[in-house]
Amino acid sequence: MNQLSKANPIGIFDSGIGGLTVVKKIDSFLPNEYFVYFGDTARVPYGSKSNSTVIEYSIQNTKFLLKKNVKMVVVACNTASSVAIRKLEDTFNLPIIGMIEPGSRMAVEETKNGRIGVIGTYATINNKAYYSELKRLDKKLEIFEKPCPLFVPLAEEGLLEHKATYLIAEDYLKSLRELKIDTLILGCTHYPLLSKVIQEVIGNEVKLIDSGIAASILVEKYLRELDLYNNTELRSANEFYVSDVPNKFKEVAELFLGKPVNNLKKIDLEELTG
Amino acid sequence: MNQLSKANPIGIFDSGIGGLTVVKKIDSFLPNEYFVYFGDTARVPYGSKSNSTVIEYSIQNTKFLLKKNVKMVVVACNTASSVAIRKLEDTFNLPIIGMIEPGSRMAVEETKNGRIGVIGTYATINNKAYYSELKRLDKKLEIFEKPCPLFVPLAEEGLLEHKATYLIAEDYLKSLRELKIDTLILGCTHYPLLSKVIQEVIGNEVKLIDSGIAASILVEKYLRELDLYNNTELRSANEFYVSDVPNKFKEVAELFLGKPVNNLKKIDLEELTG
Repeated sequence: MNQLSKANPIGIFDSGIGGLTVVKKIDSFLPNEYFVYFGDTARVPYGSKSNSTVIEYSIQNTKFLLKKNVKMVVVACNTASSVAIRKLEDTFNLPIIGMIEPGSRMAVEETKNGRIGVIGTYATINNKAYYSELKRLDKKLEIFEKPCPLFVPLAEEGLLEHKATYLIAEDYLKSLRELKIDTLILGCTHYPLLSKVIQEVIGNEVKLIDSGIAASILVEKYLRELDLYNNTELRSANEFYVSDVPNKFKEVAELFLGKPVNNLKKIDLEELTG
Repeated sequence: MNQLSKANPIGIFDSGIGGLTVVKKIDSFLPNEYFVYFGDTARVPYGSKSNSTVIEYSIQNTKFLLKKNVKMVVVACNTASSVAIRKLEDTFNLPIIGMIEPGSRMAVEETKNGRIGVIGTYATINNKAYYSELKRLDKKLEIFEKPCPLFVPLAEEGLLEHKATYLIAEDYLKSLRELKIDTLILGCTHYPLLSKVIQEVIGNEVKLIDSGIAASILVEKYLRELDLYNNTELRSANEFYVSDVPNKFKEVAELFLGKPVNNLKKIDLEELTG
């Protein structure tokens, strides 16, 4: 087992690039910490794969991060969070934080009228990950879900305030607005990039929940409780690993992270599966 | 080796669902023929994978189709066409037809001013598949390429005439319009679904080339030359196989095919790789 130490990095994995919005949040919340990010760009998307495949990939990704001596793993991917968290917790002896539980808890704290909207990919909405967690937290909540599949490619193409994005958001969010939700969970790591459009279309009275922010708060809480919070001066540079380098990767990664992505390395799939 | 016979089906494979627009064209061109379609939905997208991986998958897909006694294979996927056609021709002893060569030939026949536009995914544009084939056919052509990545998700979401689609098409196609092309190759099997929008935005004076139609003409030519054209009364029902059943598969498939998709079966990846 790993020697967990304050000076070790936080490991973060995602099926691709979306998890970088979570890195951005944790980075600004925890300026003392550093990160090893793994984006499984060769095997993206996870959303259309079977649960057993997603669990297998998540275990491989976690093992890879453990080789980098991480002290905690953040699953910055809603699909992997909804399918694989329990298995990862059972398999590995270190703290694991996903997206679903922190986002749901924050939504429950924020809502006043008990009417919560959830938007995400087809996979996240169809597997009812947020719905189940919210109902577990409070049976009386009324939950309204809506898949918004085009938000992912629109974000990756950088159309963050394009008129086409407003028109598509209007189509997606009209029904949720009419249902008088007061809280909306952004159930996909890409969506915070479109929060300006989403907020304008859904209305300022609706509170947006960014699971990345919710997870950041939990990461800090766990680190302090476990005495793993980095209060030393030792802070290495962040490292970024991907299993493939798709078109425009660096450009999109920097859009998502909000700053330059250095230390980017491609690893071979054999390094994960071998 | 297979016994090639007139009454056997035509095999068609794609990385996913886009190839169904090609099936639609061949189906209307060759009403006597029937098809076995394989969509590799578990391993989609091919565009971000290495050439060697795409070649390996293409060989596996062709072997699968051969087990269904196909008399010809159509590679209804621009990525696989650009990377794997030669290898498939070398490996298998039956006619193989891809997208790049027929589409390029048709464009060369159609252009009057020698200025041809090509639109496609990042992968197709970056690997210069159409560019190289067009230049091989006629060195003097002037070729202008533009990736249009959002056209794939817009087509899959059925936003075929949505105002957002017009706005995005306007952004993508403006530069090609200004370059005075007279012929535009739709270098992605999804794009014919958006041909109304594309035609309106690029202007009626520009001829759109649908590689699926170009391939259909070549399929008929080859079948007649090889005496494999089905002039018998034996015509079985089309069969559709996929390696995974993603969300809304049937709905999107029927949108692409233009009619109901029956005889749909999911196969296990082991059946391809084993």
